[in-house]
Amino acid sequence: MKRLDIFGLLKKDMNYIEKELFHSIEGEHELLNETSMHLLKAGGKRLRPVFVLMGGKFGNYDLEKLKNVAVPLELIHMASLVHDDVIDDADTRRGELTVKSKWDNRIAMYTGDYIYARALMIAAKLEKPQIHQILSKAMVEMSIGEMEQIRDFFNTDQSVRRYLLRIRRKTALLIAISCQLGAVASDADAKSSNLLYRYGYNVGMAFQIQDDLLDLCGTEKQIGKPPGSDMRQGNITLPVIYALQDEEIREPLLREIGYIRERNGECDVTGAIQLIKASSGISRAEALADRYIKKALDALERLPENRTKKNLKDIAHFVTKRSY
Amino acid sequence: MKRLDIFGLLKKDMNYIEKELFHSIEGEHELLNETSMHLLKAGGKRLRPVFVLMGGKFGNYDLEKLKNVAVPLELIHMASLVHDDVIDDADTRRGELTVKSKWDNRIAMYTGDYIYARALMIAAKLEKPQIHQILSKAMVEMSIGEMEQIRDFFNTDQSVRRYLLRIRRKTALLIAISCQLGAVASDADAKSSNLLYRYGYNVGMAFQIQDDLLDLCGTEKQIGKPPGSDMRQGNITLPVIYALQDEEIREPLLREIGYIRERNGECDVTGAIQLIKASSGISRAEALADRYIKKALDALERLPENRTKKNLKDIAHFVTKRSY
Repeated sequence: MKRLDIFGLLKKDMNYIEKELFHSIEGEHELLNETSMHLLKAGGKRLRPVFVLMGGKFGNYDLEKLKNVAVPLELIHMASLVHDDVIDDADTRRGELTVKSKWDNRIAMYTGDYIYARALMIAAKLEKPQIHQILSKAMVEMSIGEMEQIRDFFNTDQSVRRYLLRIRRKTALLIAISCQLGAVASDADAKSSNLLYRYGYNVGMAFQIQDDLLDLCGTEKQIGKPPGSDMRQGNITLPVIYALQDEEIREPLLREIGYIRERNGECDVTGAIQLIKASSGISRAEALADRYIKKALDALERLPENRTKKNLKDIAHFVTKRSY
Repeated sequence: MKRLDIFGLLKKDMNYIEKELFHSIEGEHELLNETSMHLLKAGGKRLRPVFVLMGGKFGNYDLEKLKNVAVPLELIHMASLVHDDVIDDADTRRGELTVKSKWDNRIAMYTGDYIYARALMIAAKLEKPQIHQILSKAMVEMSIGEMEQIRDFFNTDQSVRRYLLRIRRKTALLIAISCQLGAVASDADAKSSNLLYRYGYNVGMAFQIQDDLLDLCGTEKQIGKPPGSDMRQGNITLPVIYALQDEEIREPLLREIGYIRERNGECDVTGAIQLIKASSGISRAEALADRYIKKALDALERLPENRTKKNLKDIAHFVTKRSY
């Protein structure tokens, strides 16, 4: 999904946001400019800013106000990626070297801190206390989700519920509040803001499940890193949890995962992926992603009619359009 | 300096803030409760909250409002310490194991992120946009300072100016805004808020210089970690920079620092410390700390008369009271 492909309506505004994103982290410190620009330049879908602007369409749309929501949300997402890469020991992201790999872990940690702080500096321009409250609460939840992720590495006994709670914190919440805060900042009515939150939350859940599926079923070109990276890191995703529930697959898959763990992920994971594909794990995960999309569309139905609804619907469908 | 020794006037209020600090990071996540409480329990002077409350005495003192400034500022300080310990590879702080040492670097990074987010959640209760602006700008500066610190490790060519800029970001700014924000949150007049900033800034500079002196001249009991820790990490502090300007000391000291660097700090640093003590480094650093205190007292002079001025004066004198 290229950044602007499906956002024709917002193309001009998104170009403006893109410029603002670059301005937002530009400072007097050369190394920090370089490290924080590094990930920004690698691109990305800018889903969170898009959702902010779309949320804004349900109120009094004002780009100058919305940019102060859109930019911080993308920055918070980026900062969390930079810190994630330290934890995951990831060498590439979006086809580029990660900050921790191009520089080192310490520099990546402070780059993340810097991007967070820059995000807050932009958000500080917003006067509605409600926005700060929603934003900071989501940041707390995100950091809890990140900690959970470490603890769940190679935890083959985790439940589907535990996985869902983790991706809720890791991904869905920030997308949910992107939709919501666009509306709140534009003084949309509370009902619309809440429905947008619900839409974003469900799209976010589907999006992460789909992302986890892609890591198993996609090509290196599609993913921007080698397939099976989650397996290598010990990140036990939904298709894996489902596959482990399959009586015939469970034992051989546990052996494969044990082997990957022993080798700290530095090994071939094709065997594990083939087992997962042979199980019902993929189709069951797809079905759950589809259910979340259905819920997102239900929330969308209840929103007032406008042109943005069509775009939001397209995005929802796009998230579960499978190219693998 | 024990937490409440010189804050008699504020004892009751500081006990309340202490309780609020514990509440503020208490959540549903067991591990994060444990890791984030760990440093809090180790104690500390709580200088930033004290300065917030004292700043508040120059306006309409309202503890319920001030706690939402005091608690976040202490939490931000704590979060930065947790991230610092990752960088410094420090095993102990305040006589206790650090988070990174009791758990690991990844857990320390996310504990820091969590404490930052918790700080923002409390600060989000404050409605004045000015407070958010001052706070977020200081956080950006702090993260720049942290990055600078990494780059300056073992940099024996750094100027006094570079050192001062670094401790400004690392320490003085947060103390300056503690004094300032206490006043701003209490609707004190702009002149008082600015003078309090200036007082805090200069006390903060003196405080850090003094802390760096203590690391060289104090005992393990006084410091809470072995003396010379800065040397071992490659943190080149003011007395060292001055000592390197001493023609007779420069060469042997450079050799000692080179030796420490080669051994990644895992060696005896007594030789280096003795060289610094034999130079004018200690007395020149002390003289600069005293000059900052003088500036702090000058700012204080221009503040309106009240009982708090006496306390602020005591603190300023206390900072440069040398026990080594």
